[in-house]
Amino acid sequence: MPPSTFRCEAFAAPATDKPLGQITIERREPTAEDVQIDILFCGVCHSDLHMARNEWGFTTYPVVPGHEIVGRVASVGSAVTKFKVGDLVGVGCMVDSCRTCASCQEGLEQYCEVGNIQTYGSPDKHIGGTTHGGYSKSITVYEGFVLRISDKLDLAATAPLLCAGITTWSPLRHWKVGPGQKVGIVGLGGLGHMGVKFAHALGAHVVLFTTSASKIEDGKRLGADEVVVSKNADEMVAHGGSFDFILDCVSAEHDINAYLNLLKRDGTLCLVGAPEHPMPVAAFSLLMGRRSLAGSGIGGIAETQEMLDFCAEHGITSDVEVIDIKDINTAYERMLKSDVRYRFSIDMATLGA
Amino acid sequence: MPPSTFRCEAFAAPATDKPLGQITIERREPTAEDVQIDILFCGVCHSDLHMARNEWGFTTYPVVPGHEIVGRVASVGSAVTKFKVGDLVGVGCMVDSCRTCASCQEGLEQYCEVGNIQTYGSPDKHIGGTTHGGYSKSITVYEGFVLRISDKLDLAATAPLLCAGITTWSPLRHWKVGPGQKVGIVGLGGLGHMGVKFAHALGAHVVLFTTSASKIEDGKRLGADEVVVSKNADEMVAHGGSFDFILDCVSAEHDINAYLNLLKRDGTLCLVGAPEHPMPVAAFSLLMGRRSLAGSGIGGIAETQEMLDFCAEHGITSDVEVIDIKDINTAYERMLKSDVRYRFSIDMATLGA
Repeated sequence: MPPSTFRCEAFAAPATDKPLGQITIERREPTAEDVQIDILFCGVCHSDLHMARNEWGFTTYPVVPGHEIVGRVASVGSAVTKFKVGDLVGVGCMVDSCRTCASCQEGLEQYCEVGNIQTYGSPDKHIGGTTHGGYSKSITVYEGFVLRISDKLDLAATAPLLCAGITTWSPLRHWKVGPGQKVGIVGLGGLGHMGVKFAHALGAHVVLFTTSASKIEDGKRLGADEVVVSKNADEMVAHGGSFDFILDCVSAEHDINAYLNLLKRDGTLCLVGAPEHPMPVAAFSLLMGRRSLAGSGIGGIAETQEMLDFCAEHGITSDVEVIDIKDINTAYERMLKSDVRYRFSIDMATLGA
Repeated sequence: MPPSTFRCEAFAAPATDKPLGQITIERREPTAEDVQIDILFCGVCHSDLHMARNEWGFTTYPVVPGHEIVGRVASVGSAVTKFKVGDLVGVGCMVDSCRTCASCQEGLEQYCEVGNIQTYGSPDKHIGGTTHGGYSKSITVYEGFVLRISDKLDLAATAPLLCAGITTWSPLRHWKVGPGQKVGIVGLGGLGHMGVKFAHALGAHVVLFTTSASKIEDGKRLGADEVVVSKNADEMVAHGGSFDFILDCVSAEHDINAYLNLLKRDGTLCLVGAPEHPMPVAAFSLLMGRRSLAGSGIGGIAETQEMLDFCAEHGITSDVEVIDIKDINTAYERMLKSDVRYRFSIDMATLGA
């Protein structure tokens, strides 16, 4: 028998070419292992826009985007042990997975071999239809995919940690970035600005690459030891063969070989942005120095909690511009022009207010 | 004072568009740390052809190709400790390096940060001009870059181990290929046939990918547990997400994403062939499963000795067609058509005979 449901206000894209607007959706009442969360803030990720506009070709409408969710526990199921009413919590890109495959057993639910349940746009096994994300008043999530949030952090600025944060944290940890290493971060946007903060906090010598000279000061303020304007060929060449690790946070087309050539022997360039078209990669860029080009997608639940705890300890959050939900369509247009430093965070009190 | 020299018969390309023919070159008399080698066999690598025809754009003429050299020690310098007259020895792609950088100190002279001295086409610091390779009667090499060869092995078939062998051995060892792993080898040519032999001998479950159904039997004979004809989409899909490691030995244009998608989470596809044009790589092929695309170039001296010793112990050599030096130009044409199973080896007794 499906769980009973309640009505919940949300903001949704109704069709490919229509702006987002308010609708009412159904949420399930918590089952035994569920946590029901009153949403306080939701970050705005570029994926939200891709899905709202069906740019990946598999959107089911209406879609309620949002997977950078911070809120407070409103009720819990009878078997919930990790959370109680009133706790500050977060939800990221996933709300469930198979829980049994090798990846899930290793705490790498982002690589669930069966396919995890995304926070929005995945089949909803509880009440049918598709899952709906954080542009809403409330969400009900299996406790295994709910994160603890410290009350030391600014909540609006914490929301983007759930996607932009973990997406950069996970590869920096997997490739063991730390003191004594020279680490590059390519691109200063939602992901890149978290990459700079984290790589700096982990003790690396951080070099930010940006196409925009106007971002030099900001890059240094965020924690970069050096900022290279990537259009300046001389500056690029001066760093040849010197990086242990480079995190490429750019989704726009760019020359990946220019960055591969900056790696030391056995260095890795990891993509977290996903350019639309395949990138031309010169074999010699990899052969010379046994270099690797890798990719990484979000992060596992345990690792997300580790990141949130690290942020609480080190006072790290995103740089956000807090917006009213009614301004989400304008925010999308500004995001397309990179006109945000560096992430929008929706104050969910403005929904239905 | 430069060392004294002696005259030596060799086969050289005199210009971009001219066939190889016989010339006389100068070789140095052994200095204190040198070994002078009477060359018995020299394998024919595709790089020889690239250099002979200036396809990489930096050839100095005349060029004497050949970096898969097997011979017998004819004389040694006063300070040589590792070799004595009459020893069977080999020389690969390098004849020296800076010996002091981090890579050289780690035994990874192939990644010498100053730049190693290639067996042919590099500046010759002893007698000026450029170094000359193994299509010749004799070569004089610093003992640190001379390898011991077992008398248990067929010498003509051992020569290709010095380049095709170590080029495939090095990445298989670096990425720790062994029992319990599923390993793919892409392409059955000079490199690929050694990849199959080594991966099999190291205990992996080996799957050979070939475009040619006519190579299925040969692939199995060489040690492949399975052979996939890569043109058959169904066969490819059946192996999706199942490989720990794939060694891509193909220099021709091919779709690298089709192979990236066959990797397990955290799997690596390593290129040892170098397609002329940049390869389009889809970011999602890497993001999904934290996969890596890497490259590897030849191998270090210690590792080459390890490989040669492993071959002696396991009775492994290349499959060769032994040719007369006068047939080298025809051999190049046949190599371009992949009309060799799987490597030409020149009997150097035929030079000047």
